[in-house]
Amino acid sequence: MAKSKLRIIPLGGLGEIGRNMTLFEYGENIIVVDAGLMFPETDMFGVDIVIPDIRYLIEHRDLVRGIIVTHGHEDHHGALPYILPHVQAPIYATRLTRGLIEVKLKENGLLEKAQLHTIAPDEMLTLGPFHLEFFHVCHSIPDAVGVAIGTPVGLVVHTGDYKFDYTPVDGKLTDFHKLASFGSRGVLVLLSDSTNAERSGFTSSEQEVSESFERVFAQAEGRIIVATFASNISRVQQVMDTAVKYDRRVGVLGRSMVNNVKMAQALGYLNVPEGILLPIVELGRLSPKRVTIVCTGTQGEPTSALVRMANQDHRQVRIQPGDTVILAASLIPGNEELVHRTLNNLFRLGAQVYYQNLLPVHVSGHASQEEQKLMISLTRPRFFVPIEGEYRHLVIHAELARQMGIPRENIFVVESGQVLEFDERSGRVAETLDGGYVFVDGLGVGDVGSVVLRDRHLLSQDGFFIAVVAVDKSTGKLVEGPDIISRGFVYLRDSEELLEEARQQVIKALEKRGRSTALDDKIKEVLSRFLYEQTKRRPMILPVVLEV
Amino acid sequence: MAKSKLRIIPLGGLGEIGRNMTLFEYGENIIVVDAGLMFPETDMFGVDIVIPDIRYLIEHRDLVRGIIVTHGHEDHHGALPYILPHVQAPIYATRLTRGLIEVKLKENGLLEKAQLHTIAPDEMLTLGPFHLEFFHVCHSIPDAVGVAIGTPVGLVVHTGDYKFDYTPVDGKLTDFHKLASFGSRGVLVLLSDSTNAERSGFTSSEQEVSESFERVFAQAEGRIIVATFASNISRVQQVMDTAVKYDRRVGVLGRSMVNNVKMAQALGYLNVPEGILLPIVELGRLSPKRVTIVCTGTQGEPTSALVRMANQDHRQVRIQPGDTVILAASLIPGNEELVHRTLNNLFRLGAQVYYQNLLPVHVSGHASQEEQKLMISLTRPRFFVPIEGEYRHLVIHAELARQMGIPRENIFVVESGQVLEFDERSGRVAETLDGGYVFVDGLGVGDVGSVVLRDRHLLSQDGFFIAVVAVDKSTGKLVEGPDIISRGFVYLRDSEELLEEARQQVIKALEKRGRSTALDDKIKEVLSRFLYEQTKRRPMILPVVLEV
Repeated sequence: MAKSKLRIIPLGGLGEIGRNMTLFEYGENIIVVDAGLMFPETDMFGVDIVIPDIRYLIEHRDLVRGIIVTHGHEDHHGALPYILPHVQAPIYATRLTRGLIEVKLKENGLLEKAQLHTIAPDEMLTLGPFHLEFFHVCHSIPDAVGVAIGTPVGLVVHTGDYKFDYTPVDGKLTDFHKLASFGSRGVLVLLSDSTNAERSGFTSSEQEVSESFERVFAQAEGRIIVATFASNISRVQQVMDTAVKYDRRVGVLGRSMVNNVKMAQALGYLNVPEGILLPIVELGRLSPKRVTIVCTGTQGEPTSALVRMANQDHRQVRIQPGDTVILAASLIPGNEELVHRTLNNLFRLGAQVYYQNLLPVHVSGHASQEEQKLMISLTRPRFFVPIEGEYRHLVIHAELARQMGIPRENIFVVESGQVLEFDERSGRVAETLDGGYVFVDGLGVGDVGSVVLRDRHLLSQDGFFIAVVAVDKSTGKLVEGPDIISRGFVYLRDSEELLEEARQQVIKALEKRGRSTALDDKIKEVLSRFLYEQTKRRPMILPVVLEV
Repeated sequence: MAKSKLRIIPLGGLGEIGRNMTLFEYGENIIVVDAGLMFPETDMFGVDIVIPDIRYLIEHRDLVRGIIVTHGHEDHHGALPYILPHVQAPIYATRLTRGLIEVKLKENGLLEKAQLHTIAPDEMLTLGPFHLEFFHVCHSIPDAVGVAIGTPVGLVVHTGDYKFDYTPVDGKLTDFHKLASFGSRGVLVLLSDSTNAERSGFTSSEQEVSESFERVFAQAEGRIIVATFASNISRVQQVMDTAVKYDRRVGVLGRSMVNNVKMAQALGYLNVPEGILLPIVELGRLSPKRVTIVCTGTQGEPTSALVRMANQDHRQVRIQPGDTVILAASLIPGNEELVHRTLNNLFRLGAQVYYQNLLPVHVSGHASQEEQKLMISLTRPRFFVPIEGEYRHLVIHAELARQMGIPRENIFVVESGQVLEFDERSGRVAETLDGGYVFVDGLGVGDVGSVVLRDRHLLSQDGFFIAVVAVDKSTGKLVEGPDIISRGFVYLRDSEELLEEARQQVIKALEKRGRSTALDDKIKEVLSRFLYEQTKRRPMILPVVLEV
């Protein structure tokens, strides 16, 4: 009977975009680990964000005992505003993570109704048949945890996003001892972060970034501007520390950076000596050699502080020769062109620019292959399920596990919506649920699909061309028009002749059409041929016939 | 007097996209080195290719003594079809390069009129006051050269695209001795390839790729499919060699790959033992362990052979478990998502997949920092001009030259269209010409500009929404409509209600409009507000009013 089995269901996304939501189901009980959003790929035109398909969760809303959020990145909690209106379950998170979730829910007017609970990494928590133990992990944000879930069929370990850093900025190591104790007790299933499965060796320590910062700060003669992710509190701490050492003050730019710094400071996750943090206007009065600015914009986001500076349209900071800029972040695939443009513009303005290709000013927050092996060695799971990352990362991670002696049949590479079913000694892939993703565009959740995207794609390539005519409803003769409306096809001011010829083509079509062809089909056919011949472009052609 | 000076003018492109065209002008004489096209960036919607702005060249067409093409990549000769109709100058290229140019010109019906001349790397050539000596360089295509230009004010060395490979596939080294002899004679200006200026150390030898191929071929139990650039004849040669060694036959897929292999074989640049190359259908009769396929598709191009295979819609080859796929190419920025999708799909089909992150199955064709230093050391130029690559690469390359002792004032980091002027002992940046780039879209060269691109961008985000009404020309009363035409905004089938409300809004606008507001402005205003309130999207809104 399936009810006595543990079901594990990854949801949200296909292979290409992360899927940071996992359901654990036993009997009439479900817990959810993470509820992340995803960012659209380049060809998902106009889509704001992508969220998991949560129909299964909504159908079983009464069974949900809790939602665990492992850390404060949006790809792990950003879907909450879309879930909470449908599923009223308590949310469990560490202190900093909870703070970041609260900011998010407040923006969406959902904070008052939400049931938020703070967990500590040394805490135990029982939700229905699930006994949860958390363990601290190193990642690119403080207060990140993994979770071990005691279930009636055995212990399941979900790593969250992690790496093993022996010298992290906050001094808190990934909890080797708890992981080892889980291994001693016996782990049924390990779900482990696959993001960096392509990288051999160990991910560098944050210590290396501190050393790079030291080098740059020691040499810089002018202002230093450091761009990083707003959530990367450790990186901000490193900037603060180095600034203090080199007798510089620090200003913060960018809405999300300002908010996060404030919150992290209030919660005690950011240690800022008195008098170091100053408003930007006050920095202007200091010698450039005393100034550091921390800001957003690492992905070339057009409205971010760094990009505005690079384009010389920031209200408060203008880049000048002598400035040093550090881009302390990794490049998220798909953002290359925007980031490169920003770098080029900074160089054009005469700034000294440091970024990952030139100096290790950023390290990943995810485990590389040797760390992934360490995780498997510590936990010694019977079954292995690679999570996070794209499909290829899952496969490569699975191969690592196999090389370490986990039998091939005990490793499950599954896509979103594929249900895994476990008892004490066996596991299998059961049915597949609807488990893709859902586009959010403005207020619309799920209404933009392949049809709308295809049209947006076509329009982006060659624009549209609309011919409007009014014809007499009894005689069929042209009364008014043709009027042409076109955008994104040709530069209209220089195309008078083309437009006039197109009008003539429409008039000819009106005169010549046979009884059998609908007028709008005829117009479309004639215009398609004419415009392609003239331009070798294929705008979307739409005829409008008003009968008056 | 400017006429007695040497003018060097880079043309084509801004910092972000390469600019592989350089004019050398002395008195009433111009020679052109390379005439490349560029590929559009993601936000250049619908643009097919980008070419240099050649107005200056056209204005001075009578002065052009020749066009030198350094090697057979399209970013070095792809603009020829757009130049030759305006500028009838002889073209000089090595044998393979000439072959590739001929294919291109034939496609464009320009071959008959073109004056093509074959040069050998050991040849000298005089064009007006310019005395040219070519020198072989290693690059990711055979038969590549750089050119030393003897001018009345001194010797100028243009490296072309190069690297120093001590063990290239064809055994032909970059010509150290000629470079050294130029250095001994005295080089006034060095123009040197900056593409890999961010990379420290030396670029790996092609030998390393051969070793990776060996490893893969030695282990593979099924078919081996290798994707690479169609122009990378060396890589194809390496596949052939390894296939021969492991008793496999080879098939070729992809139009450009088939053409290039044929041509390279005919010209003697590809050495294929009898019986190795077979038609794909014949390969189907062999055991998988005897089969190798070379194909296109390294950048995830939707219609390429590899992508069709990954999507299971290739007519001849279906990927199956046991197949090994090698992606033997670098990833061109901007193509990441398409390439990653292709890799994920290949993994989904059960193929063993190797690519640069996992195994060195490709090496760059461009010099890294230590090679760039070697080039400067061999040629010992008085003036240094970094060329190729984005703006940041030029700056970093310039910094290398400075570290090697070239005075800052003798280094010129210039953008497209900036004229450099040299005499025997001095150099300076003179005026700036129109020197941006020009978009080619279908038959249109230069007609797509910022207005059309902005519209395409807007349409790609939220589509359009058009309301058409016919009103009585005397009373202004509604006669017919409003008809709504919309694409890329909402899914129409599920939005009946929204559309009906929009119609009502238009009717209300018609009834309520004041004397002073034009009807179409009023409709636009009402619809903008209504649609944004309802959807938080901003489609392009266009009202059409026909007076009948």
